[in-house]
Amino acid sequence: MAEPKNAPEAPPVRFETHPDHYRHWRLSFPPEHGGAVAKLLMDVQEDGGLRPGYPLKLNSYDLGVDIELADAIQRLRFEHPEVKALVVGSAKDRIFCSGANIYMLGSSTHAFKVNFCKFTNETRLYLEDMSAESGIHSLCALAGTSSGGGYELALACDEILLSDDGSSAVSLPECPLLGVLPGTGGLTRVVDKRKVRRDLADAFCTLAEGVRGKRAVEWGLVDETVPRAKFEEGVKRRTDALVARSARKKFTPMVLKPLEAKRSPMGTEYRYVTLALDEKARTATITVRAPDSAQPDSPEKLAAAGDAAWCVRAFRELDDALLDLRFNHLGIGTVALKTTGDAKAVLAADEMLAKYKDDGLVHEVRLFIRRVLKRLDVTAKTFFAIAEPGSCFAGTLLELALAADRVYMKDEDGVVMQVSAMNGGAYPMGNGLSRLQSRFLKEPARVEQVLALATGRPIDTQTAAKLGLTTFTPDDIDWDDEIRIAFEERASHSPDAMTGMEASLRFAGPETLETKIFGRLSAWQNWIFQRPNAVGERGALTLYGKPERPEFDWRRT
Amino acid sequence: MAEPKNAPEAPPVRFETHPDHYRHWRLSFPPEHGGAVAKLLMDVQEDGGLRPGYPLKLNSYDLGVDIELADAIQRLRFEHPEVKALVVGSAKDRIFCSGANIYMLGSSTHAFKVNFCKFTNETRLYLEDMSAESGIHSLCALAGTSSGGGYELALACDEILLSDDGSSAVSLPECPLLGVLPGTGGLTRVVDKRKVRRDLADAFCTLAEGVRGKRAVEWGLVDETVPRAKFEEGVKRRTDALVARSARKKFTPMVLKPLEAKRSPMGTEYRYVTLALDEKARTATITVRAPDSAQPDSPEKLAAAGDAAWCVRAFRELDDALLDLRFNHLGIGTVALKTTGDAKAVLAADEMLAKYKDDGLVHEVRLFIRRVLKRLDVTAKTFFAIAEPGSCFAGTLLELALAADRVYMKDEDGVVMQVSAMNGGAYPMGNGLSRLQSRFLKEPARVEQVLALATGRPIDTQTAAKLGLTTFTPDDIDWDDEIRIAFEERASHSPDAMTGMEASLRFAGPETLETKIFGRLSAWQNWIFQRPNAVGERGALTLYGKPERPEFDWRRT
Repeated sequence: MAEPKNAPEAPPVRFETHPDHYRHWRLSFPPEHGGAVAKLLMDVQEDGGLRPGYPLKLNSYDLGVDIELADAIQRLRFEHPEVKALVVGSAKDRIFCSGANIYMLGSSTHAFKVNFCKFTNETRLYLEDMSAESGIHSLCALAGTSSGGGYELALACDEILLSDDGSSAVSLPECPLLGVLPGTGGLTRVVDKRKVRRDLADAFCTLAEGVRGKRAVEWGLVDETVPRAKFEEGVKRRTDALVARSARKKFTPMVLKPLEAKRSPMGTEYRYVTLALDEKARTATITVRAPDSAQPDSPEKLAAAGDAAWCVRAFRELDDALLDLRFNHLGIGTVALKTTGDAKAVLAADEMLAKYKDDGLVHEVRLFIRRVLKRLDVTAKTFFAIAEPGSCFAGTLLELALAADRVYMKDEDGVVMQVSAMNGGAYPMGNGLSRLQSRFLKEPARVEQVLALATGRPIDTQTAAKLGLTTFTPDDIDWDDEIRIAFEERASHSPDAMTGMEASLRFAGPETLETKIFGRLSAWQNWIFQRPNAVGERGALTLYGKPERPEFDWRRT
Repeated sequence: MAEPKNAPEAPPVRFETHPDHYRHWRLSFPPEHGGAVAKLLMDVQEDGGLRPGYPLKLNSYDLGVDIELADAIQRLRFEHPEVKALVVGSAKDRIFCSGANIYMLGSSTHAFKVNFCKFTNETRLYLEDMSAESGIHSLCALAGTSSGGGYELALACDEILLSDDGSSAVSLPECPLLGVLPGTGGLTRVVDKRKVRRDLADAFCTLAEGVRGKRAVEWGLVDETVPRAKFEEGVKRRTDALVARSARKKFTPMVLKPLEAKRSPMGTEYRYVTLALDEKARTATITVRAPDSAQPDSPEKLAAAGDAAWCVRAFRELDDALLDLRFNHLGIGTVALKTTGDAKAVLAADEMLAKYKDDGLVHEVRLFIRRVLKRLDVTAKTFFAIAEPGSCFAGTLLELALAADRVYMKDEDGVVMQVSAMNGGAYPMGNGLSRLQSRFLKEPARVEQVLALATGRPIDTQTAAKLGLTTFTPDDIDWDDEIRIAFEERASHSPDAMTGMEASLRFAGPETLETKIFGRLSAWQNWIFQRPNAVGERGALTLYGKPERPEFDWRRT
């Protein structure tokens, strides 16, 4: 099973974009809805692929298309507080979206496939989060075929309206045609979100041509079908209803400006974040700095500060650094999480986020930080938090330590952690629990005990250890050696074993749609992405579109 | 990645055994507890491997060792109603168990590894089920090292007592030493059952030498340590306490006699079950026959009938057929589930099982049927239930249809299904829901509607279709073609895609420790079992015990 060698030489993937630069989506705000509705039409440019070699026919997508989608969702939340509903549709005739581009997938390395699927999964979850948390409800307007990842995108919308025209259909043909799974949430959302009966789901997922019209409604695959002539009317009716039930709050738009990161082979310098790479040691260090100037202490001042506010800027930078590590620094397996600066400044920013949580803009900032922290949770690299003199694991930044696989805290005077109200559930993990709750599953009372310290009183190393906030607390004599050895040892282990281990240990407790997608579904998909039946020379994914038929190893257990 | 070719030519694996034939375990009932305690000591015979080529040193185990363990657990439940606690220990000095034999794993095909892990997972879940449902609580007495699968076995016990002697330790060295996961429930049970803090679990799972003494208690890895000199005393103290809190019910022992299956290359004939193989078409048919003679209608008569009673015999046979399909007929991917005989006889048997559910023996029979049905749920082959003239999908046998991926029911007079009280929650799936609840997640009221029909009134095809109990209902004109095409199509799909798809669609709704083990953990382990970093020529599993060091592809995402 030779791995295609295209990725390593490819230019790095960058995740910043802007509607002015979209090549594949048309974002508009139809005047008939008075600005309350955003319309996002897919119009993929065939020759606009992120990498050469695969024309993006029939509104099929690659990572570049999804980066724009993620950007659009993000900007709707921050820059368009007037929007209460989103219509996702297609600008092409008779086709909504034919899913992830197969030739792109077939020519990608295993690591790229895994990364691509994870990012697209995150984007679809953000679409759902936007509805559940921000009140921007979504309708997928399907006038045309919607197959594979196309239908998976529809599944991530609140409602699906299908044109009943004899040809518009929904399908998940991955299993029968490609020998892989509808792994961008498809299988999970069909039975867990739409609660399609398992046997109908089984039939549907093996029916390459998909399901149309009334049957699609009966099986629960779409919410309604309307004749083509009445389609626009149906879209309007449903969109109006979505707007009507939106509880979105008004606020002053916050424009997300470019990050202007300074990148070099040694890493990236952002305003509040530094990513330092040691490719040889296969380690990196992410340092997040506390605010170094006065931060807004009210929603009005936050709006005035715009995206320069620390609470937005620092986490946009962290988000970018995490994606950069995932896609462009595959060799790096272990990441030190550090913080530096004045903990009081972090706690002051937290106070504003806690006090004004009912403000629309503050709400969006909190939700954004929560998403970035979740991105950290599902990044398949080891994170060790390092608390040393000068660090400021306080409040929102304490979440970085709680998200880490281990916490090393130096046993030295002046090294402290601090709790704020923001550790009390503002940033739940994918499993629905706060990081403190996930940490203390065995002793739920410990959560309250720790939160009771949210009085600004610094927690020294000995106390933090007693509370269970640290993993190891070497003193000055042992510190350097212990940290060095910890990173060397970690970096020596099988990266796959670490990935599987972390994916199991990080998500104890309840499972949700989200954790099922990243756990059960992604793990099976990754397995299949390794199997000769899919990616071998005679595998179904490899041979898609070629005259030869795949040859399978038939063994099942 | 060349697959070792040992398995196909190997003799078939058989799962029937008896304490008289155990080679690796010593089962005793120490007189000092008056029969209330069973003692199961591991004493693996080095040269007793199921296959040649790997000495079972240091109480390491292969499938043969685990088949005996599964048998012991089963017999304790049926044959020893006086037993209220089980002590699991080792007959060897200074070693409890060193886990699954690495050379066995390293020389096994991927399919065998997957099958082996699934069976051992089931056995450990049965150990937990025995405690939770039958009141036989278990103590693992660890005087010696317990590594990998050894500690995973300990984790499946209710309590773990560790000898504090400077050398006895628990460890999960799979990740650091072998580049694979502690996949027999280890990772899941550490954080989800014992609720070990995630960062401590991370440290523990990368510490090849493991953890001893007080630290093992502090981290929550064991319940108590006692000095070697006081170990036996500690075991007795804890065992007495387990006996004291047992609510096990008295009943007449039921001896499980050999099944005396008639096996041929065409399949297997049992008393109530027929397994018919079509290796060329890669399909099989399992037919379960209704009772053809009067069945016990009271616990007393059940005890008198012994294991010849249909409700025990038929499901022991089905269990054997499923394991035979899994291990010995890898090429078969699609299985027809059929029933035949008098539905009234099934319903009569169900009536006894429902009416006397508080009886100890009836309780065990119900629990056993539930385990066999769960074995069906996690078998990685497609199941299509076929209801045709003469079939009797009634009550307990209706569960076979509800467990199937699809239900084909012929639209013809006289073809009926029937519901009994046993469909109302007697046989929950691993997700904790009944099969009817799992089926009707979208319309929970439908469950009650179907159960209300449990009056012995037959449900014809049209009604069954309306209720949502069938997937497809071809009439006489289409039946043969449709069934033939369904099997041909299914058998043509990538077996891996079908496995991943079914694993996702079968388990909608809540997740439990059990579903997390078979979903999240097993899927990641199976991924790793495909990865060159583990099983390639320079992979960690392949090179274990050899002087060379593994070479890893370091990419992480």
